[in-house]
Amino acid sequence: MILLDGRKVASERNLQLKDKIAQAVAVHGREPGLAIIMIGDNPASLSYVKGKGKASALVGIKHELHQLPDTVTEDEVIALIEKLNQDPTVDGMILQLPIPDHLDDAKLIDLIAREKDADGFHVVNQGYLYQKKPTTKPATPKGIMTLLSAYDINPKGMNAVIVGRSNIVGFPIARLLMDAGATITICHRQTKDMAYHTKQADLLVVSAGRARLVGADMVKPGAIVVDVGVNRVDDKLVGDVDFEAVKEVASHLTPVPKGVGPMTINALLENTYELYMEHLVANKV
Amino acid sequence: MILLDGRKVASERNLQLKDKIAQAVAVHGREPGLAIIMIGDNPASLSYVKGKGKASALVGIKHELHQLPDTVTEDEVIALIEKLNQDPTVDGMILQLPIPDHLDDAKLIDLIAREKDADGFHVVNQGYLYQKKPTTKPATPKGIMTLLSAYDINPKGMNAVIVGRSNIVGFPIARLLMDAGATITICHRQTKDMAYHTKQADLLVVSAGRARLVGADMVKPGAIVVDVGVNRVDDKLVGDVDFEAVKEVASHLTPVPKGVGPMTINALLENTYELYMEHLVANKV
Repeated sequence: MILLDGRKVASERNLQLKDKIAQAVAVHGREPGLAIIMIGDNPASLSYVKGKGKASALVGIKHELHQLPDTVTEDEVIALIEKLNQDPTVDGMILQLPIPDHLDDAKLIDLIAREKDADGFHVVNQGYLYQKKPTTKPATPKGIMTLLSAYDINPKGMNAVIVGRSNIVGFPIARLLMDAGATITICHRQTKDMAYHTKQADLLVVSAGRARLVGADMVKPGAIVVDVGVNRVDDKLVGDVDFEAVKEVASHLTPVPKGVGPMTINALLENTYELYMEHLVANKV
Repeated sequence: MILLDGRKVASERNLQLKDKIAQAVAVHGREPGLAIIMIGDNPASLSYVKGKGKASALVGIKHELHQLPDTVTEDEVIALIEKLNQDPTVDGMILQLPIPDHLDDAKLIDLIAREKDADGFHVVNQGYLYQKKPTTKPATPKGIMTLLSAYDINPKGMNAVIVGRSNIVGFPIARLLMDAGATITICHRQTKDMAYHTKQADLLVVSAGRARLVGADMVKPGAIVVDVGVNRVDDKLVGDVDFEAVKEVASHLTPVPKGVGPMTINALLENTYELYMEHLVANKV
């Protein structure tokens, strides 16, 4: 079994990105800027946000965290988003999810300037993804595609089975794999016989949010398995795939942690860099 | 085999729509308006456009055809779209595809006011479809969902296999079937063994644009088969499914013509009516 080592690939790409950013800063005199909006103090979110900040600092992206109390009003969040939309030092902006129930995440995300949507969650960017147009891609699916590519895995002609249909992972990774030539199947809560489908996968992507949902009996021998899940069980992080069991049948497998997670952060940094370069070009015209 | 009689279902729904429109006109004093832009004189397009015009007249939608020469410039098309965007008597607008190669269809469609996008092809409407938000749905997928529903076919838990991945049919019908609870598989040109997948379908939707691509050996006995194809063979219209062969194995099957075609037109008329009602409400606020 070949470990799909997201931490290693992400580290290498982050180093390359650091060089590119240093070169751009030398020419243009301004660092890329990433603004992170976080509402409330969910410990998992805080941990993600810290990870994103740390990785940004490492590659030379100036990041700023705007942590708002969970009692914040919609108007206050909108005022902040609009301020950041106008701020020429902010190239990328993300609203860390989830946010409190009294706020409408899609509405707020669509108020982020499309040109600053580092997560690729803006309705227009999702429309472009749907249309197979160049756009800012959602970070996790983009990171998975990069990881596969780093191991010379070409999805063309493969049967790719995706477990989970979220707008953040399942649906867009299905789209990207289809665009790369895979035949795609999307399974979800209403799927009658999950194992029937997963056992047909040459490439299996699991993003169900259920600890160790996929065991060895659900995986075709020799399959490539990508585990997007992050679940806390007995104070330990485990994926949606039973790693110890599935490593005996899969040809390639991502660990959790240190698989898809670091690739997601790398994709977010690359998105921010790409938006920064577009802003530099746009401001010269 | 039960014939999924699109002509019959569409006729019934068009009659209901005619009543609803008559009632709305009695109250609001204005008919719904549909503007159709056609570029060039492709005979198939002209036939579709005529069909849409005839059906509009039947239900009480005022339609206007803007036929432009295939030498028209982009600026001229844009000027027309902008004029129609401003025209308060136009509730729905469609750009009949295909258009000549020197014009960019996606660019032009995105210039149609989102509130008048009767085909559901605008990038923001496609983004909302992606996000499972209320939006104007593309006519063919919407028509298929209506046809299934008219025969009390509930896709929940079914294995739905879609052949074809276009933004107009294959991809959006997959999305709608997934939202309705089906496990979806999308096959396409790069799929290695098409029959392997189609034979697993409880519900098979074929939109490949290849005459009689799907024969009886590719269909599971008892499957529901929806044929979106319209191909001219020996001066006769045939679908992507070999009707005579597949009717022996399928439980339900659409004919070609008179299957999905009339449902697509009905969906376009319903979209136009819905946009009209939204405009009436918006203008009162």
